[in-house]
Amino acid sequence: MYLTSFTHAGQLKYGFLTQNGQSVVDAQEAEKRLFEETLLPGSLIEVIETGEAYSRLKEINRLLQDGGDHALPLSDIVLEAPIPFPRRDIICLGLNYREHALEYTDAMEEAKHIPQHPIVFSKATTTVIGPNKPIKSHSDVTKQIDYEAELAIVIGKEGTNISEADAYDYIFGYTIINDVTARDLQKKHSQWFLGKSLDTFGPMGPYLVTADEIPAPVKLDIQCRVNGEIRQHSNTEYLIFDIPAMIKTLSSGITLKPGDIIATGTPKGVGLGFQPPKFLNPGDRVEVEIEKIGVLSNVIS
Amino acid sequence: MYLTSFTHAGQLKYGFLTQNGQSVVDAQEAEKRLFEETLLPGSLIEVIETGEAYSRLKEINRLLQDGGDHALPLSDIVLEAPIPFPRRDIICLGLNYREHALEYTDAMEEAKHIPQHPIVFSKATTTVIGPNKPIKSHSDVTKQIDYEAELAIVIGKEGTNISEADAYDYIFGYTIINDVTARDLQKKHSQWFLGKSLDTFGPMGPYLVTADEIPAPVKLDIQCRVNGEIRQHSNTEYLIFDIPAMIKTLSSGITLKPGDIIATGTPKGVGLGFQPPKFLNPGDRVEVEIEKIGVLSNVIS
Repeated sequence: MYLTSFTHAGQLKYGFLTQNGQSVVDAQEAEKRLFEETLLPGSLIEVIETGEAYSRLKEINRLLQDGGDHALPLSDIVLEAPIPFPRRDIICLGLNYREHALEYTDAMEEAKHIPQHPIVFSKATTTVIGPNKPIKSHSDVTKQIDYEAELAIVIGKEGTNISEADAYDYIFGYTIINDVTARDLQKKHSQWFLGKSLDTFGPMGPYLVTADEIPAPVKLDIQCRVNGEIRQHSNTEYLIFDIPAMIKTLSSGITLKPGDIIATGTPKGVGLGFQPPKFLNPGDRVEVEIEKIGVLSNVIS
Repeated sequence: MYLTSFTHAGQLKYGFLTQNGQSVVDAQEAEKRLFEETLLPGSLIEVIETGEAYSRLKEINRLLQDGGDHALPLSDIVLEAPIPFPRRDIICLGLNYREHALEYTDAMEEAKHIPQHPIVFSKATTTVIGPNKPIKSHSDVTKQIDYEAELAIVIGKEGTNISEADAYDYIFGYTIINDVTARDLQKKHSQWFLGKSLDTFGPMGPYLVTADEIPAPVKLDIQCRVNGEIRQHSNTEYLIFDIPAMIKTLSSGITLKPGDIIATGTPKGVGLGFQPPKFLNPGDRVEVEIEKIGVLSNVIS
């Protein structure tokens, strides 16, 4: 299922993409018409948190895969981030592709190296924006805005001390995050939170694809384009710390919760890695594409 | 007002400390008896988010400062963290007292230095525990648990690009956080999120003291004791980046929201700074005391 949050007639709604990919079904509206009782909560994150609600949503999807007269054409809605208001900060892995770790440490004038252990930081909830929403240039505080194409995992059930063998059972689905970064602030403040957390620096979407659509282990082509030019192109199979490893490491002491979002790291080709660097400027369009998920497109304002 | 969240008869409630400091008033219960309409929301964080609710709470406090027959003796309740479920990660300042920056960088074998710019990282929401709750030793993942006594600010209204002159207007109140840290994980994972975010590593409380009780600029004696031995003793006037400076820096790009929690950094005297280091062991009692706020006491389990 391709889940989505969207605005329709001024209201934030959620639902799923129909089979032809051209329209969405408003889940709560469909439930009202299909069933006598209303069980679905008001937001997608609450569906993720409630097994019963998710079963109901799957049932609606089964009945209305083609949308029928419930279909709202994509042109009539505005796509939002699937989880527009996360319950806590996005957990992010840093330098998690070999070649990116080398380009980054080199450009930052650190000893060139590959991490021996996962690098984990967070990105504020207030960064999150949907597809096609503008990324603010924050020109008063940064001159070095950079893109980072990333596969993001959404956790589906609570867990602590999760083994690598069980890790995939805890995944609800996958989406795309552009881990937009102010490189100058990232360096200036030493810890990365600030440079990663400016408002609008967390484009997410376009869909939250449920885990059943993507076989494990996850091997997905990932690409980032700036104004049509391919800057990053890799595959998630090249993650240094793969999905089971990162879920094991994080959950060794931190209870993961349904709705938690984990951004898995970015491949080689960020703007910082070019000589001279290719930072983003107002008007630039950044597209992150991940196989089986879609294209997340945003323009710098 | 000394605000508190607490458990009574198996339910999570909130209210305020009575004038003699010996009992609390359950705010929603008091409202029911005093007024015909119920306006107060179900949790303290929602009061912080709603000006109208906060006015109502102040009115109840004015009428029942001594508790009257609404008073619940402290012995009949269990104090919880004032904000047991933050809306997002706790924003933390690192190395924000001069002598601590020196002891830390020295002990971590970094070039000994004082930060030129605020160091900002986050601590997961799932770390939060209340006064007297056990801090888990997580002995399978860390051998180096350390304490950090910190004054925490709670934001009271939404703001971006807040000037230093206006900063105090955005503060709802103050509480204490023990920024418990696994030093080995902090070092091993390079970014600090993981070492700071193990479950139970965020003791908070005992009270959320409203800003009107503490004159600005905030100069409060701060102390940490382990099994009665004074380890840290300083005053918040010695913060390198003071409260207006940190609110200005954070809000330059990050929208601050009511209920956001900012831990302001810890003074010299952490376990890591001793030779040999004095890390915490099961059974150790850590007490963080801040003038005008109280004592936050927790035992390592």
